Amino acid sequence: MSSVLSADPVLQQVDRGFEDSLGRLCDLLRIPSVSTDPAYKGDVRRAADWLVRELSGLGFDASVRETAGHPAVVAHHPGPGGQDVPHILYYGHYDVQPAEPLELWNSPPFEPAIVEAEHGRRIVARGAVDDKGQVMTFIEAFRAWHAVHGTLPIRVTVLLEGEEETGSPNLLPFLKANAEELKADVCVITDTNAWNIDTPAITTRLRGLLYVEATLHGPSHDLHSGMFGGAVLNPINALTRILGQIHDEDGRVRFPGFYDDVAEPTDEEKAMWRDLGFDESAFLAGVGLKTPVGEAGRSALERLWSRPTCDINGIWGGYTGEGSKTVIASKASAKLSCRLVPAQDPEKILAGIKSFLEERTPADGRWEFTVFGRSPGVQVPTDSPYLRAAMAGLGDVFANKPALVGSGGSIPVGGYIRQALGFDSIFVGFGLEDDRIHSPNEKFEVKCLHNGIRSHAAMLARFAAL
Amino acid sequence: MSSVLSADPVLQQVDRGFEDSLGRLCDLLRIPSVSTDPAYKGDVRRAADWLVRELSGLGFDASVRETAGHPAVVAHHPGPGGQDVPHILYYGHYDVQPAEPLELWNSPPFEPAIVEAEHGRRIVARGAVDDKGQVMTFIEAFRAWHAVHGTLPIRVTVLLEGEEETGSPNLLPFLKANAEELKADVCVITDTNAWNIDTPAITTRLRGLLYVEATLHGPSHDLHSGMFGGAVLNPINALTRILGQIHDEDGRVRFPGFYDDVAEPTDEEKAMWRDLGFDESAFLAGVGLKTPVGEAGRSALERLWSRPTCDINGIWGGYTGEGSKTVIASKASAKLSCRLVPAQDPEKILAGIKSFLEERTPADGRWEFTVFGRSPGVQVPTDSPYLRAAMAGLGDVFANKPALVGSGGSIPVGGYIRQALGFDSIFVGFGLEDDRIHSPNEKFEVKCLHNGIRSHAAMLARFAAL
Repeated sequence: MSSVLSADPVLQQVDRGFEDSLGRLCDLLRIPSVSTDPAYKGDVRRAADWLVRELSGLGFDASVRETAGHPAVVAHHPGPGGQDVPHILYYGHYDVQPAEPLELWNSPPFEPAIVEAEHGRRIVARGAVDDKGQVMTFIEAFRAWHAVHGTLPIRVTVLLEGEEETGSPNLLPFLKANAEELKADVCVITDTNAWNIDTPAITTRLRGLLYVEATLHGPSHDLHSGMFGGAVLNPINALTRILGQIHDEDGRVRFPGFYDDVAEPTDEEKAMWRDLGFDESAFLAGVGLKTPVGEAGRSALERLWSRPTCDINGIWGGYTGEGSKTVIASKASAKLSCRLVPAQDPEKILAGIKSFLEERTPADGRWEFTVFGRSPGVQVPTDSPYLRAAMAGLGDVFANKPALVGSGGSIPVGGYIRQALGFDSIFVGFGLEDDRIHSPNEKFEVKCLHNGIRSHAAMLARFAAL
Repeated sequence: MSSVLSADPVLQQVDRGFEDSLGRLCDLLRIPSVSTDPAYKGDVRRAADWLVRELSGLGFDASVRETAGHPAVVAHHPGPGGQDVPHILYYGHYDVQPAEPLELWNSPPFEPAIVEAEHGRRIVARGAVDDKGQVMTFIEAFRAWHAVHGTLPIRVTVLLEGEEETGSPNLLPFLKANAEELKADVCVITDTNAWNIDTPAITTRLRGLLYVEATLHGPSHDLHSGMFGGAVLNPINALTRILGQIHDEDGRVRFPGFYDDVAEPTDEEKAMWRDLGFDESAFLAGVGLKTPVGEAGRSALERLWSRPTCDINGIWGGYTGEGSKTVIASKASAKLSCRLVPAQDPEKILAGIKSFLEERTPADGRWEFTVFGRSPGVQVPTDSPYLRAAMAGLGDVFANKPALVGSGGSIPVGGYIRQALGFDSIFVGFGLEDDRIHSPNEKFEVKCLHNGIRSHAAMLARFAAL
C-alpha cells in the first residue's frame, strides 16, 4: 500500500529543527548511564526516564520496563489511524561504556563538547555515537514526522536496552516474556556504521561468535623445573605446541569440519565489496601494522566479512609475576574464540575444536572446557522488501548509493530477535570507523547525526509505501 | 692429621638430644621468613636473629650481616685450640618460599605439624626441609659436639643466606666483599636430597640456569577481535606458534648451537646411575603422571642430570579474567628457562634463543627480552679428599653406601663460592624427592632430620681426621 503522508516537508522540518535535535542529544549525553558500574545505577534509570518522557511527547505510549538488571524502555506508536501499515520495531541502547581512562579525554566525557574538525562540527562525549547518538537519529525523525503530520506513517514499537554494553544478559528473557507485545514485521537496529561520511551502509552480514576457555591439566601440582624439567609433561610447553598448530601455512584454521558449511560470498557481493575501494594499508596503519595477515588469496573485506577465524584472546599459566620462578605449572589455559559466518553451526564448530585439541592431548594430559558464548552468524536476505525500502530511503538522502556491507563483529540482538520474536533485522547505522567507540574521546560527526535523522525520516516514508 | 676427639659419644648425644633438636627446628619454622614478600621483612630478620642466638650459644662468634637486601648470618668457630685442623664453610639459607596457595595446606604453613606417615613422623611446614630443616642438621651436629667436647673438631665458618628463594641477588657481592673472612678449605652446602630415606647422597653434578622473559609486541593497542580478527597479527597466536616449535619430535631443543658443548656422561657415571635402580614410574606417579617425557633414547636420570632442557615457566597475554572478552592483545609474553649442563656457556645459549625467536618473528612483530639469571652448570671433582671424607662420614651413619648423584636443579651458590672465594663445594643434604618443596604441605621426614644431624656429626670427625 502507498502512504498518504509525504516525506518532503518532514525532511525540511528535520533541517529546521536540527539545532534543537543536537541540543536534546547533548542533554541525553549528560546523563552518565554506565551500565557496568553499579555506582551509575541511578543514572541509567534517569536516562530511561528521559527517553520515556521524550517518546511520550511524540505520541508514543512509553514506559520504563523492569528486567533482572537495568530497565528497558518500550514505546508504542499506533501510526496513522485506520490504515493497514507496516509495523516496525526499532532497537537501540541507551547505556554506555565506562569513560575510563579519564585522563585521556580532551574534555569531560559526560559534558558534550562540540568541536570543529575535518568534516565540520563533531560531538565529543561518551555515548556520542554508541548508541545514544544513533538512537536519537530515529527519535528525532519521529519528532519531525509528528511535528509535520501529527502522527507517524507506520506503526512503530521502540525497544531501548540498558544493558547492551554488559552483554545484554537480560535481553533474550525480556524478548521472550514480551514476545506478543514486541511483535512486528521487521526490526531496524541502529548500532552500526556507515561506509564513510558520504556513503550510507546497511550491514547484511554479521559474524557469530564461539568463545571457549580450554585448560590443559598435567602434573598433580606445580613442580620445580630443576627437579623435573626435561623428564615430565610441561602443560605450557604442550599448550603452545597444540595451539601453535591451529592455523596452517596458508592461514586456514585446521579444526576438523571448520569450513564445511562456509559459503563463498556471491560474485555480486565480491564485486560490491571490491567497488568499495577498502584501503587495507590505512586500516592496518591505524593500529600500528603494515602487513596483511590471514587466509591467503582473499581480500581483507572477504576475510573480515565472509570468513570464519580463530583468535586466542587470552593465555595464562605458571608464573607471571615479576622476575623468575622456576616452576613447571600443573596446568595452562587459553581463551579462544571463533568468529563464525552464517550456516556454520556453533555446536559443530565446538565439537571440531574439542576433537582437534583432544587428538593432540599429550600423554597424561587432560582438557577442561568452558564455553562462554555460541551465537551463529547473521545474514540478512538482500531481497527483503524492507531492506530494499531502507535502501531507497537512504537513497533519498545521500548522493552515493548505499553500500551493502558485512561486519566482522557480532551483534547478538539480531539473533535474539529472530529466536524470540521470529522476524529479521535490518542493521542500518550512521557511525564511522574512526568514532573511537569504547575509547576516550568518542565522537559523532554532526553531519552523520543530521543525515541519520534525515535517513530515518525518509525510510519511514519508504516503509509506509510498502 | 688425626683428630683427638671421638665421634661416638657425639652420636649418642645427638640421639639423646633429638627431641629438643626437633623442638628447635619447629621454633625456627614458626618464623615466616618469606624473602620475596616485603610484608615479611621483619620476620626474615627475626629468623636471622634467632640463628645468631643459637650459634652464639654453641661457641660461635655470630652476627647478622647487612646486604642490599635481607641480611646474612655469619658465624665463626675456632675449633680445638692449637691444632692444624681443616677449615670448612657451611652454607644454608634461612629464607623460605611463599606458602600460597594457603587453601591447599592441610595445616597452617607456619605452625609446624608432626604427622605420622609411612616412614614414621614427619614435620609439615613451609621450610621444613628447604632449607631450615637442612640448616638445623649441621647446627644440631655442632650442638652435640659442643655438648660432649666443649668445642668442634675443626674450624668452622657458617654462612646462612636470607635471599636464596629470590635468586640470591646479593650473595656474590657479599662473598666478594667478605672474601678474606669467608676463606676456608672447602664449602659444605646442605640444600640437596638423599637418594632415598636409607641411602645418603652427595651431589656432584648440578645443572645451571638461564632464565629469559620474552614479549612479542604486535598491534599498537588492544583490538576488537570482531573488527580485526582474521586480518591482523595476533601476538598470542604467533607466540604459541613460535614457542610450540622449541622441541623437535624427539624432544630435543631446537635453539641453534644448544647441544654444541654438551658432554656425554662417562661410562662410569652411566653405570653408577644405572646401579641406583631409579624407579621412573614411581617418580612420575609421585606427581600424578605415568608417561616418560623428554629426549628419546635416554634414561630419566641421564635426562635430569646430564642433559640441558627448555621449559616454559609462565605465559600470559590478553584477557585472563572471568568470562569472555573478545580482544586481540597488543602483546604476549612468556618466561622460559633452560637448565644447563657444565661447559654450556649461558651467553652462547642466550644468543641461540634470541636468534631462534627472532628468525620466527612475524611481520610487524617485535621482541623484547629480559634475562633474570644465567648460571653455568657445576661438576664437583669426585677425587677430592673432602668429598671422600664426607662419604666416609655418611658411611658411618648409613648402612647403604652413599650415592654420587646429579641434580636437575641449580644451586648457584656453588659457582659463586668458586668465583669469589676460590674453593669447591660439597653438596650433601638429606631431603627426599617427595618433600614438596615450594609446594603446599612441604615436609621433612623426622628420620631424615635425625640421620642428617648424625651424618654431619660423623662428617665433622672425618674432616678432622684429614
